[in-house]
Amino acid sequence: MRGAVIHAPGDVRFEERDDPTIINPTDAIIRTVATCVCGSDLWAYRGIEPVTEPHPMGHEYVGVVEEVGREVTSVKPGEFVIGSFATSDNTCPNCRNGYQSSCVHREFMSTCQAEYVRIPQAQGTLVATPDRPADELVPSLLTLSDVMGTGWYAAVAAEVRPGSTVAVVGDGAVGLCGVIAAKELGAERIIAMSRHEPRQRLAREFGATDIVTERGDEGVARIKDLTDGIGADSVLECVGTAESMLQALRSTRPGGNVGFVGVPHDVEIPGEELFFSHVGLRGGPAPVRGYLPDLIDRVWGGRIDPGKVFDLTLPLEQVAKGYKAMDERRAIKTLLLP
Amino acid sequence: MRGAVIHAPGDVRFEERDDPTIINPTDAIIRTVATCVCGSDLWAYRGIEPVTEPHPMGHEYVGVVEEVGREVTSVKPGEFVIGSFATSDNTCPNCRNGYQSSCVHREFMSTCQAEYVRIPQAQGTLVATPDRPADELVPSLLTLSDVMGTGWYAAVAAEVRPGSTVAVVGDGAVGLCGVIAAKELGAERIIAMSRHEPRQRLAREFGATDIVTERGDEGVARIKDLTDGIGADSVLECVGTAESMLQALRSTRPGGNVGFVGVPHDVEIPGEELFFSHVGLRGGPAPVRGYLPDLIDRVWGGRIDPGKVFDLTLPLEQVAKGYKAMDERRAIKTLLLP
Repeated sequence: MRGAVIHAPGDVRFEERDDPTIINPTDAIIRTVATCVCGSDLWAYRGIEPVTEPHPMGHEYVGVVEEVGREVTSVKPGEFVIGSFATSDNTCPNCRNGYQSSCVHREFMSTCQAEYVRIPQAQGTLVATPDRPADELVPSLLTLSDVMGTGWYAAVAAEVRPGSTVAVVGDGAVGLCGVIAAKELGAERIIAMSRHEPRQRLAREFGATDIVTERGDEGVARIKDLTDGIGADSVLECVGTAESMLQALRSTRPGGNVGFVGVPHDVEIPGEELFFSHVGLRGGPAPVRGYLPDLIDRVWGGRIDPGKVFDLTLPLEQVAKGYKAMDERRAIKTLLLP
Repeated sequence: MRGAVIHAPGDVRFEERDDPTIINPTDAIIRTVATCVCGSDLWAYRGIEPVTEPHPMGHEYVGVVEEVGREVTSVKPGEFVIGSFATSDNTCPNCRNGYQSSCVHREFMSTCQAEYVRIPQAQGTLVATPDRPADELVPSLLTLSDVMGTGWYAAVAAEVRPGSTVAVVGDGAVGLCGVIAAKELGAERIIAMSRHEPRQRLAREFGATDIVTERGDEGVARIKDLTDGIGADSVLECVGTAESMLQALRSTRPGGNVGFVGVPHDVEIPGEELFFSHVGLRGGPAPVRGYLPDLIDRVWGGRIDPGKVFDLTLPLEQVAKGYKAMDERRAIKTLLLP
């Protein structure tokens, strides 16, 4: 089969790779129906995370089950399935506590930009859709394997409630999905921080009520202006830099919450500032497995359409073009079709 | 009148100071019935916080109202009152959100180791007891102005629930009060981290079910041993050092919570570790004003007896001795009687 391999920063190739096979009785093999490029894939593409040897890429996927190991009974060949970017047995104490992305058997998926993928812990990781989805639902279903589930977790971690005022730091696919999540969870006011017009438009379409184009201290001041001088109830940090984290913290009211889902790179949180802020902070890789049944329902019923974050669709063999377009911010997110 | 003044690290004197007077119509003057020395007073006493000029000390107090400004109607002369170490109008947005210690009119009390004290924002800050308390209730009522309320907030911020497993880092007065709070909030298992026998005994008396004497990585390993290998649901960080913060974070299960109430000194929280821990974090100066009515009830009804944290009682004029005993860890907490 063929799939993406990164050889060095900026150098992603589509090449022949070994067909995946069942290794453990808890594995499944899926034929990929759609996959995509994630903002976090760009860390390696940009050389911020080292590439010490060539390796496959990709952690987002929907597909059709080809084969299952003997311990997998929850999905069967022929079914259309979605799974999280983090595998989970869905039975360990952390899974039972709702943190499947801290499963004691967790593996981070990393081979999904390919024609076939091996899914470890398939029993706990994969969820089948009610039926074969129509083509137009596939992009939205694909977002549930990461970015929509991650935006959802950001909103849950930031304790968005009916009536909340929410600010979203980051206008990538996750931030935009965070706007959807905030709206679904009942937020009354959703402030998207973005200076890119196409993303502002999409944020408004997804439910943003206000756009703030300023960043840093000026961005914080604008949020305060819009929130009686105290800050937002909930702030979704969807970037992962030291600047975005401080911007998020300082935009939150005392007693409010920051949900942070951008993987932090060189971020140290000043303890004394956090203390006096009274802000609650929770982050991490999103436990999207737990949200899948609910989010599949919302997509299936046409209630949400997060697939709109894909503004570039390419055949999988052009995966390198997909990275380049996102790296140059010409695309929010690239969908890849084998 | 007379009161404590710190002149330099290690040099606290009891000396003549100006009588406090009503400055603003929102002030009250109280005659101090009891005050005490706080663990946080030791930061200055030990020279960790600079003492640039002589200044009064003390932020914990109960007393009898002597005089009120014209805008104060909620308490009147002759009433026995308790107030928070942080003043609050109890009407601003932050107060209404339950974070009175982030009141837009907040002042931190700092003159309370004295015979008389001026209380700013008295209307929102002070709460009268149902009647004049019996002498034996005074120590417990005094703890409500800081340490008991702070332990309570630590448990609330750490989201202690009925059935929770809780670990408490720090065996000072606040940590011990945190044990009381965890018990009152329904924790099933309370692990106190302490290597001092008298404090271990008091922790058990307050409701601790387990004692862990190890610290650092070994302490974390012991907590994991006691919690199915995943960590405690809630951890109360009641120290404020980088070591204690990491110990708290690493002792918490994915999806669990740390409530941190030790004022952080040189603490930087590593963003990536916090991210992958899935731990929620909230700290700050406790909004004890909000807890006062409930905690007064619990003390008045004999349900809790946090006054046991005082293991040394001195006349106020011997305040210097009180600091010394706590500095040398001969006393957990010193009660001072004018």
